[in-house]
Amino acid sequence: QGDVRAGAQKAASCMACHGAEGKSAVPLYPNLAGQHAPYLLHSLQAYKKGERSGGQAEVMKAFVAGLSDQDMDDLAAYYASLQP
Amino acid sequence: QGDVRAGAQKAASCMACHGAEGKSAVPLYPNLAGQHAPYLLHSLQAYKKGERSGGQAEVMKAFVAGLSDQDMDDLAAYYASLQP
Repeated sequence: QGDVRAGAQKAASCMACHGAEGKSAVPLYPNLAGQHAPYLLHSLQAYKKGERSGGQAEVMKAFVAGLSDQDMDDLAAYYASLQP
Repeated sequence: QGDVRAGAQKAASCMACHGAEGKSAVPLYPNLAGQHAPYLLHSLQAYKKGERSGGQAEVMKAFVAGLSDQDMDDLAAYYASLQP
């Protein structure tokens, strides 16, 4: 189960592209605020497993390489908790 | 440039999974309402190009196979226009 507070602390690296509140300033990067946690977790796992390519997939793959399952759960819980 | 009204008419097939208003009832499927149009378009193109696998990627690939570039632009504009 993801922990929102822990996720907030782990989200520092995400903010450059996805915004301080999960709303990205660059429209080619997705907003994350209020997205379903299970989908966010699925996406992080997909990048980690190499199931996505093109676009910023290599960037995402590099970021998620260092994340544990718990880290990904926490990040998903955090972004799902934010107001869209 | 995407046309919101045309997108609304083309979105019938999307609703079963992504909800009538772009908010999915199944949390493993992403909400689309209010997402950035360029990211939505990127995602549709990624499915079409086979850049995503796992999860529901095969389902999405089948859906987008019949979509033109204009169709994808319209769908992206429509979902971006909805209240998140």
